[in-house]
Amino acid sequence: MRLGIIGSTGHINYVMNGLRELPHVHLVGVSAGSLGESIDNLIRIVHQEGHSPTLYSNFIELLDQAKPDIVAVACYFHDHAKIAAEALRRGIHVFVEKPVATSLEDLDMLKEAYQSSGQAQLAAMFGIRYDPAFYTAWHAVKNGAVGRIRLLHAQKSYRLGKRGEHFTSRQTYGGTIPWVGSHAIDWVHWYSGERFETVYASHSTQDNGGHGELETTAMCLFTMSNEVSATVSIDYLRPTAAPTHGDDRIRITGAEGILEIRDQQVLLINGNESGVQMLPLLPKIEIFADFVRQITEGSVCLVSPEDAFYVTEACLRAVIAADEKRVIRFE
Amino acid sequence: MRLGIIGSTGHINYVMNGLRELPHVHLVGVSAGSLGESIDNLIRIVHQEGHSPTLYSNFIELLDQAKPDIVAVACYFHDHAKIAAEALRRGIHVFVEKPVATSLEDLDMLKEAYQSSGQAQLAAMFGIRYDPAFYTAWHAVKNGAVGRIRLLHAQKSYRLGKRGEHFTSRQTYGGTIPWVGSHAIDWVHWYSGERFETVYASHSTQDNGGHGELETTAMCLFTMSNEVSATVSIDYLRPTAAPTHGDDRIRITGAEGILEIRDQQVLLINGNESGVQMLPLLPKIEIFADFVRQITEGSVCLVSPEDAFYVTEACLRAVIAADEKRVIRFE
Repeated sequence: MRLGIIGSTGHINYVMNGLRELPHVHLVGVSAGSLGESIDNLIRIVHQEGHSPTLYSNFIELLDQAKPDIVAVACYFHDHAKIAAEALRRGIHVFVEKPVATSLEDLDMLKEAYQSSGQAQLAAMFGIRYDPAFYTAWHAVKNGAVGRIRLLHAQKSYRLGKRGEHFTSRQTYGGTIPWVGSHAIDWVHWYSGERFETVYASHSTQDNGGHGELETTAMCLFTMSNEVSATVSIDYLRPTAAPTHGDDRIRITGAEGILEIRDQQVLLINGNESGVQMLPLLPKIEIFADFVRQITEGSVCLVSPEDAFYVTEACLRAVIAADEKRVIRFE
Repeated sequence: MRLGIIGSTGHINYVMNGLRELPHVHLVGVSAGSLGESIDNLIRIVHQEGHSPTLYSNFIELLDQAKPDIVAVACYFHDHAKIAAEALRRGIHVFVEKPVATSLEDLDMLKEAYQSSGQAQLAAMFGIRYDPAFYTAWHAVKNGAVGRIRLLHAQKSYRLGKRGEHFTSRQTYGGTIPWVGSHAIDWVHWYSGERFETVYASHSTQDNGGHGELETTAMCLFTMSNEVSATVSIDYLRPTAAPTHGDDRIRITGAEGILEIRDQQVLLINGNESGVQMLPLLPKIEIFADFVRQITEGSVCLVSPEDAFYVTEACLRAVIAADEKRVIRFE
């Protein structure tokens, strides 16, 4: 299989890690995805990993001349939808950074391209689903560890550091709720299996260290089907002194138990044992390898295109709720 | 000083604990507060503690015949405001269970009674402020441990057990957001010092174990002044197997640090030390004793009447937001 990589901005490491266990996938071409995007770092990494792809001057040339079977897309965030749609229209499978779009119009355009593409497949880089703690928790929840889910609270907390120019403009960045929050919004949907009904949200650019329009903090409250509710807390205020870059958490409250992920551990309280149980972690799976196996072996990738589209829609509606300070209802 | 106790339903233990360090306060009378309320338990406890109050057949008789200087009010929740107001109108100081009212009309009536009462003082039973972890955290935050506060997430999680009849009707209970959530809503206001601007909320009676209209779960999102936001998660789904009855938490995210209370510990990350610091806890103070000292010594009780009224208002607006599925704006 022939692989192209477009862009060097998002989680290209997912592709690199997956390629190590995919000897039949050959990296044939790389290009920038966005105007002004440097891919020097990408070129350095692919050479380190022993690949020798052709460098194309833009993504259209890559798509048309390298003729990949699959492309990975991870450029400035407002270009994800456009590039993914161009690939799908050529029947090329797409592994694309989240959020898959930064506007509802672009999202509709991408969904249309996907639905018209016939056999081409798509997954978004919701890689934290594959983190051993999150994956272990998912199996536990699906096996009834907490009974019917009633509440979820998810947290994303990152160090801010110094971010590139495209983070500082809503137009290229899309917002902190879609960029950072999309993981947490994905989790509350993925674990509960419920549909979003309404969202209220807030965000603020205060204390963003000179990062222009980048929102440093955000919060969302989703009401969901079956009277399930979820809150999401998002911030870039994790101190440099913290032991890790990120502090990903979720607390899942069910009618028969409560499960938490914290510090890469899965903690469960239910009727089966007294006190707090710490679940043994399942081994790590590579997201890109999982997606390629769906294409080559017909297995089912953990991230469906419907999930990618739906969670992106939820993020974008939350941005509107925060911008306009009103409840947004899902159709 | 002469003390009366009206009702046996809420946190009368705060009064009993305080009395042990207040030899000049004499419990002269007790009565039920609400129709159908048993005070057998109260009578048993006060005798155990060595008090011999007169038993009055209703709270009006207690107020008029026992002539207390202070009353503690903790009956069915919809009667708090009415009884507190009757006491204030007689110039009697009031230590009242939260929420101080279960409707905005009753709250206005109580505020009016307080403002007209002249010297009579009031505090609400926001006793968790005095819990060593919460009190230690408050001092740390006030001393700048996290810099400017940007986000807060507070959690109340209780075992449900089997609750009395007055919990099963909105009319007598007032709702889970005011009863359980008022603590968490108090914290986000108390720590941040910000004013509430809008609230969206949800609640559900599902899986309430036959407790009628009692909401088992609730969530709120408050936007506050200075673009601060707060979420609150409330549930009665803490499993019997859990190590404790309740799981009170708060996470306070500031521009210069993050502080958390969890498992009665105060955890802080900021620029002062590397990694996570566990703060040494301040000694416990008794809330009722603090209130009595405000009356007798002119010190300042940690819970002001303005806080009690304002937090109750926030709770009641959150109930309306959840009932009507819309954003409520504060005036």
